[in-house]
Amino acid sequence: MTYRLYYWPTIQGRGELVRLALEAVGAEYEDVGRTPEGPNFGAVSSILWGEQPGPPAFAPPVLDVDGHLIAQTANILLYLGGKHGLAPEGELDRLWVNQLQLTIADFVGEIHDTHHPVGVQLYYEDQKEEALNKAQGFREYRLPKFLGYFERVLADNADAGWLAGTACTYADLSMFQVVAGLRYAFPNAMARAEYSTPRVTLLHQRVRDLPRISAYLDSERRIPFNEDGIFRHYPELDE
Amino acid sequence: MTYRLYYWPTIQGRGELVRLALEAVGAEYEDVGRTPEGPNFGAVSSILWGEQPGPPAFAPPVLDVDGHLIAQTANILLYLGGKHGLAPEGELDRLWVNQLQLTIADFVGEIHDTHHPVGVQLYYEDQKEEALNKAQGFREYRLPKFLGYFERVLADNADAGWLAGTACTYADLSMFQVVAGLRYAFPNAMARAEYSTPRVTLLHQRVRDLPRISAYLDSERRIPFNEDGIFRHYPELDE
Repeated sequence: MTYRLYYWPTIQGRGELVRLALEAVGAEYEDVGRTPEGPNFGAVSSILWGEQPGPPAFAPPVLDVDGHLIAQTANILLYLGGKHGLAPEGELDRLWVNQLQLTIADFVGEIHDTHHPVGVQLYYEDQKEEALNKAQGFREYRLPKFLGYFERVLADNADAGWLAGTACTYADLSMFQVVAGLRYAFPNAMARAEYSTPRVTLLHQRVRDLPRISAYLDSERRIPFNEDGIFRHYPELDE
Repeated sequence: MTYRLYYWPTIQGRGELVRLALEAVGAEYEDVGRTPEGPNFGAVSSILWGEQPGPPAFAPPVLDVDGHLIAQTANILLYLGGKHGLAPEGELDRLWVNQLQLTIADFVGEIHDTHHPVGVQLYYEDQKEEALNKAQGFREYRLPKFLGYFERVLADNADAGWLAGTACTYADLSMFQVVAGLRYAFPNAMARAEYSTPRVTLLHQRVRDLPRISAYLDSERRIPFNEDGIFRHYPELDE
Protein backbone atom coordinates (compact mmCIF):
# COMPACT_ATOMS: atom_id res chain seq x y z
CA MET A 1 0.00 0.00 0.00
CA THR A 2 1.20 3.48 -0.87
CA TYR A 3 0.28 6.28 1.53
CA ARG A 4 -0.98 9.52 0.05
CA LEU A 5 0.11 12.65 1.89
CA TYR A 6 -1.85 15.87 1.37
CA TYR A 7 0.17 18.92 2.30
CA TRP A 8 1.08 22.29 0.82
CA PRO A 9 3.67 21.54 -1.83
CA THR A 10 6.03 24.51 -1.43
CA ILE A 11 6.72 24.53 2.33
CA GLN A 12 7.96 22.13 4.96
CA GLY A 13 5.39 23.26 7.52
CA ARG A 14 3.71 20.76 9.80
CA GLY A 15 3.64 18.28 6.94
CA GLU A 16 7.40 17.90 7.29
CA LEU A 17 6.91 16.11 10.61
CA VAL A 18 4.90 13.49 8.74
CA ARG A 19 7.34 13.37 5.82
CA LEU A 20 10.23 12.73 8.22
CA ALA A 21 8.39 9.80 9.80
CA LEU A 22 7.53 8.30 6.42
CA GLU A 23 11.11 8.75 5.23
CA ALA A 24 12.62 7.34 8.43
CA VAL A 25 10.85 4.00 7.95
CA GLY A 26 11.22 3.88 4.19
CA ALA A 27 7.45 3.94 3.64
CA GLU A 28 6.11 4.35 0.14
CA TYR A 29 4.13 7.55 -0.15
CA GLU A 30 2.89 9.96 -2.73
CA ASP A 31 3.25 13.63 -1.84
CA VAL A 32 0.04 14.52 -3.63
CA GLY A 33 0.58 18.26 -4.01
CA ARG A 34 3.98 17.80 -5.64
CA THR A 35 3.83 16.65 -9.23
CA PRO A 36 6.41 16.47 -12.03
CA GLU A 37 4.57 19.42 -13.56
CA GLY A 38 4.94 21.50 -10.40
CA PRO A 39 2.97 22.29 -7.27
CA ASN A 40 -0.71 21.37 -7.21
CA PHE A 41 -2.38 23.32 -4.41
CA GLY A 42 -5.84 22.38 -5.59
CA ALA A 43 -5.22 18.70 -4.98
CA VAL A 44 -4.44 19.52 -1.36
CA SER A 45 -7.25 21.96 -0.67
CA SER A 46 -9.78 19.64 -2.33
CA ILE A 47 -9.36 17.20 0.53
CA LEU A 48 -10.46 19.71 3.18
CA TRP A 49 -14.15 19.65 4.19
CA GLY A 50 -14.55 18.12 0.75
CA GLU A 51 -16.95 15.68 -0.78
CA GLN A 52 -14.65 12.77 -0.09
CA PRO A 53 -15.98 9.97 2.04
CA GLY A 54 -14.58 9.75 5.51
CA PRO A 55 -14.09 12.24 8.28
CA PRO A 56 -13.42 15.80 7.14
CA ALA A 57 -10.13 17.51 8.02
CA PHE A 58 -9.92 21.07 9.29
CA ALA A 59 -6.44 21.61 7.82
CA PRO A 60 -3.57 19.71 6.26
CA PRO A 61 -1.56 17.56 6.69
CA VAL A 62 -3.93 14.72 5.87
CA LEU A 63 -2.77 11.15 5.37
CA ASP A 64 -4.78 8.83 3.15
CA VAL A 65 -4.39 5.27 4.44
CA ASP A 66 -6.10 2.99 1.97
CA GLY A 67 -8.96 5.45 1.49
CA HIS A 68 -9.25 6.39 5.16
CA LEU A 69 -8.27 9.98 5.90
CA ILE A 70 -6.34 10.87 9.08
CA ALA A 71 -5.55 14.49 9.98
CA GLN A 72 -3.84 16.48 12.73
CA THR A 73 -0.06 16.01 12.74
CA ALA A 74 0.24 14.39 16.17
CA ASN A 75 -2.65 12.08 15.34
CA ILE A 76 -1.06 10.96 12.07
CA LEU A 77 2.20 10.32 13.90
CA LEU A 78 0.38 8.37 16.62
CA TYR A 79 -0.92 6.13 13.85
CA LEU A 80 2.36 5.81 11.94
CA GLY A 81 4.37 5.32 15.12
CA GLY A 82 2.35 2.28 16.06
CA LYS A 83 2.43 0.78 12.57
CA HIS A 84 6.11 1.28 11.80
CA GLY A 85 7.96 0.88 15.08
CA LEU A 86 8.45 4.60 15.66
CA ALA A 87 6.88 4.29 19.11
CA PRO A 88 7.26 1.86 22.02
CA GLU A 89 4.81 -1.01 22.49
CA GLY A 90 3.13 -0.39 25.84
CA GLU A 91 0.10 1.89 26.22
CA LEU A 92 1.64 4.18 28.86
CA ASP A 93 4.89 4.42 26.88
CA ARG A 94 2.94 5.40 23.77
CA LEU A 95 1.05 8.03 25.73
CA TRP A 96 4.39 9.43 26.88
CA VAL A 97 5.59 9.81 23.28
CA ASN A 98 2.24 11.38 22.37
CA GLN A 99 2.64 13.78 25.30
CA LEU A 100 6.08 14.80 24.04
CA GLN A 101 4.72 15.27 20.52
CA LEU A 102 1.89 17.49 21.78
CA THR A 103 4.42 19.60 23.67
CA ILE A 104 6.43 19.89 20.44
CA ALA A 105 3.19 20.95 18.72
CA ASP A 106 2.73 23.70 21.31
CA PHE A 107 6.34 24.78 20.71
CA VAL A 108 5.80 24.84 16.93
CA GLY A 109 2.63 26.86 17.37
CA GLU A 110 4.49 29.51 19.36
CA ILE A 111 7.29 29.60 16.79
CA HIS A 112 4.74 30.17 14.03
CA ASP A 113 3.08 32.94 16.01
CA THR A 114 6.32 34.92 16.29
CA HIS A 115 5.70 36.10 12.71
CA HIS A 116 1.89 35.89 12.86
CA PRO A 117 0.84 37.14 16.30
CA VAL A 118 -2.31 38.93 15.13
CA GLY A 119 -3.78 36.51 12.64
CA VAL A 120 -3.18 33.95 9.92
CA GLN A 121 -5.48 35.92 7.64
CA LEU A 122 -2.94 38.80 7.50
CA TYR A 123 0.51 39.09 5.92
CA TYR A 124 3.61 39.34 8.08
CA GLU A 125 4.13 42.89 6.84
CA ASP A 126 0.76 43.85 8.32
CA GLN A 127 1.68 42.65 11.81
CA LYS A 128 5.39 43.37 11.89
CA GLU A 129 5.30 45.69 14.92
CA GLU A 130 3.43 43.11 16.95
CA ALA A 131 5.79 40.41 15.67
CA LEU A 132 8.80 42.30 17.04
CA ASN A 133 7.26 42.20 20.52
CA LYS A 134 6.14 38.61 20.20
CA ALA A 135 9.54 37.42 18.98
CA GLN A 136 11.35 39.18 21.80
CA GLY A 137 9.25 37.41 24.41
CA PHE A 138 9.71 34.15 22.54
CA ARG A 139 13.50 34.47 22.47
CA GLU A 140 13.79 35.54 26.10
CA TYR A 141 11.26 33.30 27.80
CA ARG A 142 9.68 30.63 25.69
CA LEU A 143 12.63 29.37 23.62
CA PRO A 144 14.85 28.60 26.66
CA LYS A 145 11.88 27.18 28.56
CA PHE A 146 10.91 24.71 25.83
CA LEU A 147 14.49 23.71 25.00
CA GLY A 148 15.24 23.34 28.70
CA TYR A 149 12.28 21.04 29.08
CA PHE A 150 13.45 18.72 26.32
CA GLU A 151 17.00 18.84 27.71
CA ARG A 152 15.58 17.61 31.01
CA VAL A 153 13.68 14.82 29.25
CA LEU A 154 16.87 13.74 27.47
CA ALA A 155 18.84 13.87 30.74
CA ASP A 156 16.29 11.55 32.34
CA ASN A 157 16.80 9.09 29.49
CA ALA A 158 20.54 9.68 29.04
CA ASP A 159 21.50 6.03 28.64
CA ALA A 160 19.43 5.79 25.47
CA GLY A 161 20.14 9.22 24.01
CA TRP A 162 16.58 9.43 22.65
CA LEU A 163 13.62 11.29 24.11
CA ALA A 164 11.69 8.15 25.03
CA GLY A 165 12.51 4.51 25.50
CA THR A 166 15.51 2.83 23.89
CA ALA A 167 15.02 3.68 20.22
CA CYS A 168 14.25 6.59 17.93
CA THR A 169 10.59 7.63 17.99
CA TYR A 170 8.65 10.07 15.87
CA ALA A 171 9.08 12.64 18.65
CA ASP A 172 12.86 12.53 18.08
CA LEU A 173 12.32 13.13 14.36
CA SER A 174 10.08 16.10 15.11
CA MET A 175 12.57 17.50 17.60
CA PHE A 176 15.26 17.35 14.91
CA GLN A 177 13.01 19.41 12.66
CA VAL A 178 12.32 22.00 15.35
CA VAL A 179 16.05 22.45 16.04
CA ALA A 180 16.83 22.71 12.33
CA GLY A 181 14.04 25.22 11.85
CA LEU A 182 15.02 27.33 14.84
CA ARG A 183 18.61 27.49 13.58
CA TYR A 184 17.27 28.77 10.28
CA ALA A 185 14.80 31.26 11.74
CA PHE A 186 16.70 32.55 14.78
CA PRO A 187 20.40 31.78 14.17
CA ASN A 188 21.66 34.15 16.85
CA ALA A 189 19.15 33.37 19.57
CA MET A 190 19.44 29.66 18.86
CA ALA A 191 23.24 29.62 18.96
CA ARG A 192 23.05 31.15 22.43
CA ALA A 193 20.23 28.88 23.61
CA GLU A 194 21.97 25.70 22.52
CA TYR A 195 24.91 26.40 24.85
CA SER A 196 22.60 25.33 27.66
CA THR A 197 21.07 22.33 25.92
CA PRO A 198 23.86 20.06 24.63
CA ARG A 199 21.66 16.97 24.68
CA VAL A 200 19.18 18.65 22.34
CA THR A 201 22.07 19.50 20.01
CA LEU A 202 23.31 15.91 20.06
CA LEU A 203 19.82 14.57 19.39
CA HIS A 204 19.55 16.76 16.30
CA GLN A 205 22.86 15.40 15.04
CA ARG A 206 21.92 11.81 15.80
CA VAL A 207 18.70 12.08 13.77
CA ARG A 208 20.57 13.96 11.02
CA ASP A 209 22.93 10.98 10.72
CA LEU A 210 20.26 8.29 10.40
CA PRO A 211 20.96 6.87 6.94
CA ARG A 212 17.43 7.29 5.58
CA ILE A 213 17.05 10.77 7.06
CA SER A 214 20.45 11.79 5.76
CA ALA A 215 19.56 10.57 2.29
CA TYR A 216 16.23 12.36 2.43
CA LEU A 217 17.74 15.67 3.53
CA ASP A 218 20.19 15.51 0.63
CA SER A 219 17.44 14.71 -1.87
CA GLU A 220 15.16 17.01 -3.85
CA ARG A 221 12.24 15.69 -1.82
CA ARG A 222 13.38 17.94 1.04
CA ILE A 223 11.92 21.39 0.42
CA PRO A 224 14.33 24.14 1.55
CA PHE A 225 13.31 26.42 4.41
CA ASN A 226 11.68 29.59 3.12
CA GLU A 227 9.65 32.58 4.25
CA ASP A 228 6.27 30.96 3.57
CA GLY A 229 6.58 28.23 6.18
CA ILE A 230 6.57 28.00 9.97
CA PHE A 231 10.28 28.71 10.39
CA ARG A 232 10.98 32.05 8.71
CA HIS A 233 14.24 33.94 8.79
CA TYR A 234 13.35 37.57 9.36
CA PRO A 235 16.58 39.05 10.78
CA GLU A 236 14.65 41.75 12.64
CA LEU A 237 12.98 39.05 14.75
CA ASP A 238 16.28 37.52 15.85
CA GLU A 239 18.49 39.02 18.53
CA MET B 1 -8.30 3.75 42.55
CA THR B 2 -8.74 7.50 42.93
CA TYR B 3 -7.28 9.71 40.20
CA ARG B 4 -5.33 12.75 41.26
CA LEU B 5 -5.76 15.79 38.99
CA TYR B 6 -3.15 18.56 39.11
CA TYR B 7 -4.49 21.81 37.74
CA TRP B 8 -4.65 25.46 38.77
CA PRO B 9 -7.32 25.63 41.46
CA THR B 10 -8.99 28.96 40.63
CA ILE B 11 -9.71 28.63 36.90
CA GLN B 12 -11.48 26.22 34.58
CA GLY B 13 -8.75 26.42 31.94
CA ARG B 14 -7.67 23.35 30.03
CA GLY B 15 -8.09 21.31 33.20
CA GLU B 16 -11.85 21.69 32.83
CA LEU B 17 -11.81 19.42 29.79
CA VAL B 18 -10.37 16.70 32.02
CA ARG B 19 -12.74 17.49 34.90
CA LEU B 20 -15.74 17.15 32.56
CA ALA B 21 -14.56 13.72 31.41
CA LEU B 22 -14.00 12.53 34.98
CA GLU B 23 -17.39 13.88 36.05
CA ALA B 24 -19.21 12.41 33.04
CA VAL B 25 -18.17 8.86 33.97
CA GLY B 26 -18.50 9.32 37.73
CA ALA B 27 -14.80 8.66 38.31
CA GLU B 28 -13.36 9.25 41.75
CA TYR B 29 -10.73 11.96 41.65
CA GLU B 30 -8.98 14.38 43.91
CA ASP B 31 -8.56 17.90 42.52
CA VAL B 32 -5.21 18.32 44.24
CA GLY B 33 -4.95 22.11 44.10
CA ARG B 34 -8.35 22.60 45.73
CA THR B 35 -8.38 21.91 49.45
CA PRO B 36 -10.92 22.66 52.21
CA GLU B 37 -8.47 25.34 53.36
CA GLY B 38 -8.43 27.02 49.94
CA PRO B 39 -6.38 26.93 46.74
CA ASN B 40 -2.98 25.26 46.88
CA PHE B 41 -0.97 26.44 43.85
CA GLY B 42 2.23 24.94 45.22
CA ALA B 43 0.84 21.43 45.08
CA VAL B 44 0.19 21.92 41.37
CA SER B 45 3.45 23.58 40.39
CA SER B 46 5.45 21.02 42.37
CA ILE B 47 4.48 18.36 39.87
CA LEU B 48 6.06 20.20 36.91
CA TRP B 49 9.64 19.25 35.98
CA GLY B 50 9.78 18.18 39.60
CA GLU B 51 11.61 15.48 41.45
CA GLN B 52 8.72 13.06 41.10
CA PRO B 53 9.41 9.76 39.40
CA GLY B 54 7.94 9.38 35.97
CA PRO B 55 7.94 11.53 32.88
CA PRO B 56 8.03 15.28 33.55
CA ALA B 57 5.19 17.50 32.41
CA PHE B 58 5.72 20.84 30.68
CA ALA B 59 2.47 22.30 31.99
CA PRO B 60 -0.74 21.27 33.76
CA PRO B 61 -3.17 19.55 33.60
CA VAL B 62 -1.43 16.41 34.83
CA LEU B 63 -3.33 13.26 35.80
CA ASP B 64 -1.80 10.88 38.33
CA VAL B 65 -2.95 7.36 37.52
CA ASP B 66 -1.75 5.11 40.30
CA GLY B 67 1.59 6.93 40.47
CA HIS B 68 2.02 7.30 36.72
CA LEU B 69 1.81 10.89 35.49
CA ILE B 70 0.06 11.75 32.21
CA ALA B 71 0.04 15.30 30.82
CA GLN B 72 -1.27 17.21 27.80
CA THR B 73 -5.04 17.56 27.79
CA ALA B 74 -5.74 15.61 24.60
CA ASN B 75 -3.39 12.87 25.78
CA ILE B 76 -5.13 12.55 29.15
CA LEU B 77 -8.47 12.37 27.36
CA LEU B 78 -7.15 9.73 24.96
CA TYR B 79 -6.30 7.65 28.02
CA LEU B 80 -9.55 8.30 29.91
CA GLY B 81 -11.67 7.84 26.79
CA GLY B 82 -10.34 4.34 26.32
CA LYS B 83 -10.69 3.35 29.97
CA HIS B 84 -14.17 4.72 30.62
CA GLY B 85 -16.13 4.29 27.41
CA LEU B 86 -15.82 7.92 26.30
CA ALA B 87 -14.39 6.83 22.94
CA PRO B 88 -15.32 4.18 20.37
CA GLU B 89 -13.56 0.80 20.33
CA GLY B 90 -11.81 0.63 16.95
CA GLU B 91 -8.38 2.12 16.32
CA LEU B 92 -9.45 4.32 13.39
CA ASP B 93 -12.54 5.49 15.27
CA ARG B 94 -10.38 6.45 18.24
CA LEU B 95 -8.01 8.34 15.97
CA TRP B 96 -10.98 10.25 14.59
CA VAL B 97 -12.03 11.35 18.09
CA ASN B 98 -8.41 12.28 18.83
CA GLN B 99 -8.33 14.30 15.59
CA LEU B 100 -11.46 16.19 16.66
CA GLN B 101 -9.99 16.81 20.11
CA LEU B 102 -6.77 18.20 18.61
CA THR B 103 -8.82 20.53 16.42
CA ILE B 104 -10.68 21.67 19.54
CA ALA B 105 -7.26 22.23 21.16
CA ASP B 106 -6.27 24.47 18.24
CA PHE B 107 -9.56 26.35 18.63
CA VAL B 108 -8.97 26.79 22.38
CA GLY B 109 -5.45 28.03 21.72
CA GLU B 110 -6.73 30.71 19.37
CA ILE B 111 -9.42 31.73 21.87
CA HIS B 112 -6.75 32.11 24.56
CA ASP B 113 -4.58 34.19 22.26
CA THR B 114 -7.34 36.75 21.68
CA HIS B 115 -6.43 38.24 25.07
CA HIS B 116 -2.75 37.23 25.01
CA PRO B 117 -1.51 37.75 21.45
CA VAL B 118 1.97 38.96 22.41
CA GLY B 119 2.92 36.64 25.21
CA VAL B 120 1.82 34.63 28.25
CA GLN B 121 4.52 36.38 30.29
CA LEU B 122 2.66 39.72 30.01
CA TYR B 123 -0.64 40.93 31.49
CA TYR B 124 -3.63 41.55 29.27
CA GLU B 125 -3.37 45.27 30.01
CA ASP B 126 0.12 45.28 28.47
CA GLN B 127 -1.10 43.85 25.16
CA LYS B 128 -4.57 45.33 24.93
CA GLU B 129 -4.03 47.13 21.62
CA GLU B 130 -2.79 43.97 19.98
CA ALA B 131 -5.65 42.04 21.56
CA LEU B 132 -8.20 44.32 19.90
CA ASN B 133 -6.77 43.42 16.49
CA LYS B 134 -6.43 39.76 17.30
CA ALA B 135 -9.98 39.49 18.63
CA GLN B 136 -11.41 41.22 15.56
CA GLY B 137 -9.78 38.68 13.26
CA PHE B 138 -10.89 35.88 15.52
CA ARG B 139 -14.52 37.02 15.51
CA GLU B 140 -14.63 37.64 11.76
CA TYR B 141 -12.66 34.70 10.40
CA ARG B 142 -11.66 32.07 12.87
CA LEU B 143 -14.78 31.73 15.04
CA PRO B 144 -17.15 31.06 12.12
CA LYS B 145 -14.58 28.79 10.46
CA PHE B 146 -14.10 26.56 13.50
CA LEU B 147 -17.81 26.46 14.40
CA GLY B 148 -18.67 25.77 10.78
CA TYR B 149 -16.27 22.86 10.74
CA PHE B 150 -17.87 21.22 13.78
CA GLU B 151 -21.34 21.92 12.34
CA ARG B 152 -20.27 19.98 9.25
CA VAL B 153 -18.96 17.12 11.38
CA LEU B 154 -22.28 16.98 13.25
CA ALA B 155 -24.22 17.09 9.98
CA ASP B 156 -22.23 14.09 8.72
CA ASN B 157 -23.23 12.20 11.87
CA ALA B 158 -26.75 13.61 12.17
CA ASP B 159 -28.46 10.34 13.05
CA ALA B 160 -26.46 10.08 16.25
CA GLY B 161 -26.38 13.76 17.22
CA TRP B 162 -22.85 13.39 18.60
CA LEU B 163 -19.57 14.38 16.95
CA ALA B 164 -18.35 10.80 16.47
CA GLY B 165 -19.94 7.38 16.51
CA THR B 166 -23.20 6.60 18.28
CA ALA B 167 -22.50 7.81 21.81
CA CYS B 168 -21.10 10.77 23.71
CA THR B 169 -17.30 11.00 23.56
CA TYR B 170 -14.84 13.23 25.36
CA ALA B 171 -14.78 15.45 22.25
CA ASP B 172 -18.48 16.21 22.77
CA LEU B 173 -17.78 17.17 26.39
CA SER B 174 -14.96 19.49 25.28
CA MET B 175 -17.13 21.03 22.58
CA PHE B 176 -19.76 21.79 25.23
CA GLN B 177 -17.10 23.62 27.23
CA VAL B 178 -15.93 25.62 24.23
CA VAL B 179 -19.48 26.76 23.43
CA ALA B 180 -20.13 27.66 27.08
CA GLY B 181 -16.86 29.56 27.24
CA LEU B 182 -17.42 31.43 23.99
CA ARG B 183 -20.88 32.51 25.16
CA TYR B 184 -19.24 33.89 28.29
CA ALA B 185 -16.32 35.59 26.54
CA PHE B 186 -17.96 36.84 23.33
CA PRO B 187 -21.71 36.95 23.99
CA ASN B 188 -22.50 39.18 21.01
CA ALA B 189 -20.26 37.52 18.44
CA MET B 190 -21.30 34.08 19.62
CA ALA B 191 -25.02 34.84 19.48
CA ARG B 192 -24.56 35.82 15.85
CA ALA B 193 -22.30 32.87 15.01
CA GLU B 194 -24.66 30.29 16.49
CA TYR B 195 -27.42 31.27 14.06
CA SER B 196 -25.43 29.38 11.45
CA THR B 197 -24.55 26.38 13.58
CA PRO B 198 -27.75 24.97 15.13
CA ARG B 199 -26.25 21.51 15.52
CA VAL B 200 -23.43 22.90 17.65
CA THR B 201 -26.03 24.65 19.81
CA LEU B 202 -28.00 21.43 20.22
CA LEU B 203 -24.86 19.48 21.11
CA HIS B 204 -24.10 21.96 23.88
CA GLN B 205 -27.60 21.51 25.27
CA ARG B 206 -27.45 17.74 25.01
CA VAL B 207 -24.23 17.58 27.02
CA ARG B 208 -25.60 20.15 29.48
CA ASP B 209 -28.53 17.83 30.14
CA LEU B 210 -26.50 14.68 30.86
CA PRO B 211 -27.45 13.92 34.48
CA ARG B 212 -23.88 13.76 35.81
CA ILE B 213 -22.79 16.85 33.89
CA SER B 214 -25.87 18.73 34.97
CA ALA B 215 -25.21 17.82 38.62
CA TYR B 216 -21.57 18.84 38.26
CA LEU B 217 -22.39 22.21 36.72
CA ASP B 218 -24.76 22.96 39.58
CA SER B 219 -22.20 21.95 42.22
CA GLU B 220 -19.48 23.95 43.90
CA ARG B 221 -16.92 21.80 42.10
CA ARG B 222 -17.61 23.82 38.94
CA ILE B 223 -15.44 26.94 39.13
CA PRO B 224 -17.24 29.96 37.61
CA PHE B 225 -15.80 31.56 34.49
CA ASN B 226 -13.53 34.46 35.37
CA GLU B 227 -10.91 36.79 33.87
CA ASP B 228 -7.94 34.60 34.79
CA GLY B 229 -8.85 31.66 32.57
CA ILE B 230 -8.95 30.93 28.86
CA PHE B 231 -12.43 32.36 28.27
CA ARG B 232 -12.38 35.95 29.49
CA HIS B 233 -15.16 38.45 29.10
CA TYR B 234 -13.54 41.71 28.08
CA PRO B 235 -16.42 43.65 26.43
CA GLU B 236 -13.98 45.61 24.25
CA LEU B 237 -12.94 42.36 22.54
CA ASP B 238 -16.51 41.43 21.61
CA GLU B 239 -18.40 42.98 18.73
